[in-house]
Amino acid sequence: MLNAVIDAEILKESIDAISALVTECRVHTGETGLSTRAVDTANVAMVSLTLEPAAFQSFSTTPGELGIDIAKMKNIFAMTGKNDAMTLELQEGQNKLQISFQTYRYSLSLLDANTIRKDPNTPNIDLPGRVVLSGTELYNTIKAAAVVSDKILLGIDARAPVFYMHAEGDTDHIRREFGPGELKEVSAVEARSLFSLDYLKDMGRVMSRAEEVEIALGIDHPVRFSFAIAGGKGHVEYLLAPRIEAD
Amino acid sequence: MLNAVIDAEILKESIDAISALVTECRVHTGETGLSTRAVDTANVAMVSLTLEPAAFQSFSTTPGELGIDIAKMKNIFAMTGKNDAMTLELQEGQNKLQISFQTYRYSLSLLDANTIRKDPNTPNIDLPGRVVLSGTELYNTIKAAAVVSDKILLGIDARAPVFYMHAEGDTDHIRREFGPGELKEVSAVEARSLFSLDYLKDMGRVMSRAEEVEIALGIDHPVRFSFAIAGGKGHVEYLLAPRIEAD
Amino acid sequence: MLNAVIDAEILKESIDAISALVTECRVHTGETGLSTRAVDTANVAMVSLTLEPAAFQSFSTTPGELGIDIAKMKNIFAMTGKNDAMTLELQEGQNKLQISFQTYRYSLSLLDANTIRKDPNTPNIDLPGRVVLSGTELYNTIKAAAVVSDKILLGIDARAPVFYMHAEGDTDHIRREFGPGELKEVSAVEARSLFSLDYLKDMGRVMSRAEEVEIALGIDHPVRFSFAIAGGKGHVEYLLAPRIEAD
Repeated sequence: MLNAVIDAEILKESIDAISALVTECRVHTGETGLSTRAVDTANVAMVSLTLEPAAFQSFSTTPGELGIDIAKMKNIFAMTGKNDAMTLELQEGQNKLQISFQTYRYSLSLLDANTIRKDPNTPNIDLPGRVVLSGTELYNTIKAAAVVSDKILLGIDARAPVFYMHAEGDTDHIRREFGPGELKEVSAVEARSLFSLDYLKDMGRVMSRAEEVEIALGIDHPVRFSFAIAGGKGHVEYLLAPRIEAD
Repeated sequence: MLNAVIDAEILKESIDAISALVTECRVHTGETGLSTRAVDTANVAMVSLTLEPAAFQSFSTTPGELGIDIAKMKNIFAMTGKNDAMTLELQEGQNKLQISFQTYRYSLSLLDANTIRKDPNTPNIDLPGRVVLSGTELYNTIKAAAVVSDKILLGIDARAPVFYMHAEGDTDHIRREFGPGELKEVSAVEARSLFSLDYLKDMGRVMSRAEEVEIALGIDHPVRFSFAIAGGKGHVEYLLAPRIEAD
Repeated sequence: MLNAVIDAEILKESIDAISALVTECRVHTGETGLSTRAVDTANVAMVSLTLEPAAFQSFSTTPGELGIDIAKMKNIFAMTGKNDAMTLELQEGQNKLQISFQTYRYSLSLLDANTIRKDPNTPNIDLPGRVVLSGTELYNTIKAAAVVSDKILLGIDARAPVFYMHAEGDTDHIRREFGPGELKEVSAVEARSLFSLDYLKDMGRVMSRAEEVEIALGIDHPVRFSFAIAGGKGHVEYLLAPRIEAD
């Protein structure tokens, strides 16, 4: 059973964050709100998302699991306007989620959760390098790298310390450095790993709306991006595996 | 002979309304202004349009019939600006319409009216259900239905009375109801018919600019949309045949 | 050696002007600033561009020649913002141009100038007809002609005098006349030549930003368009060969 009302913009923000990586997912409902964790088909990137009960205008649920078709959910937001409240209703034992907004009533068939990949375990990895910057700056940096290459090197030079990105094309290369003055935080820990821009462009579009994104880096290790959604009443983490290359 | 001056925006609005259904038409000129009536190639939808002499800045004509290439007319409006006056001139016995605006002089070859389908008769049908709502709301409803299906059910529930739309997808469905508070008028007459969204999307784009659209409905009958153009000095009617489906 | 700082918008304007015709060019550096002259692959159109040292915030160079990949340069401007200053640095004997802006550092490999077509000679032609009008009006005229044809006739009727364009489609034609009141200048010299709109559309997009474009015309002769860039600290000329047609 689920009975919740939420600002349509907040739910849209959440669905957008998930849709950067997967087209369907298992959403868990319970006392702590909604949560989901999903891995893309190539097993390269993971998204974890939570929405606290406080992110909703009203929220009441029994513990459960909903198989959500993310692409269909995205379509619904083509009809919603700014400040629309959205009501979500699921009767016990039913597999149709009733979504109401304005004078619309949308009936969404849930997917059988058993046909969706199981929740991945969160890998236990140590990423000592830490940078905090604005989502807009991060996305601009990703787009700039994409102009010359399909890979990006993200790193921290511990001496300065500066956070940098570097992208190598066939003949050209581009580099951008962020000193402490341009960053909200940077740890003096050496870090550098290479990533595929394919994934980062989709994640970056979502992160560009975040005021602050925390980046956790290691040496030839995954990167973890963390940022708040729903005005701090929700949280998203992206984890992306590195590309290993012979130098 | 035709000699007329009209606000380019008004003529554009008229051509747009026709182009939702056909690419060429016969335009009749006479004391009562301009008029046209045309049916799409599949015989599913009809458009009737009239522009009174008062819709023009000046208007003088002999009774006649002009074969108009709607697609070419649309192209011309790519060159016009807001508040441009457009002069239309046709010499007796000529088949070139001279269209002047700004310092442009466009010479449009008329089509041989005999090669264009004859004007359809207006079918004599009784559509007792009547709803008046804003064109924007109507278009939003059409677009929302298109998210889940290629067909839309439009109806009036006489008890409430409410006007509703319902669209069924493979697994999902969407419904929207408009109560008397959201409508300018609704008659307490039961009505329900199913329509193809292909046609309605094109018509809806045109109607979205109308402050008020009158919808006339029956049971498994065509729908008729009527709305004013040219600030009330012109009128458009769309008639669309229903899709009949076994339930 | 080159060491220069320039407003990114000014350099973008220059690169755009060149890219209307060619994808690579030889840029000459020297005491008089930067200059380039290039012919399109079909030998139909030529662009000449100069940027004075005063167009730069600072400028110091030895005489030299740089092979520039115009397409790559254009990509860089996707990253720049309004009012960004751009630093260009080339060390003696190097073939990497260092381009810095914001906190980006872009390293652009120069092309081997010997692999790029030699600078064309400026043909010595007499074009006595002269018209000066706004770039926006010129571009609108080009776009209007493109609605009916792929060729445009540009001419001066010496009696009035008026500058006119005329385009013939299969069935329709369009004509636009500019009297002395709409022009900044027009010489009372008969002129008329036919041009391909393919080239003019690309040139026109660039010229649409110029307050004034000077057009020099003859009879069945090329047309020369001249306009200022960089707030008068730079200059562009396009020369376009006529299309000769049996009447």
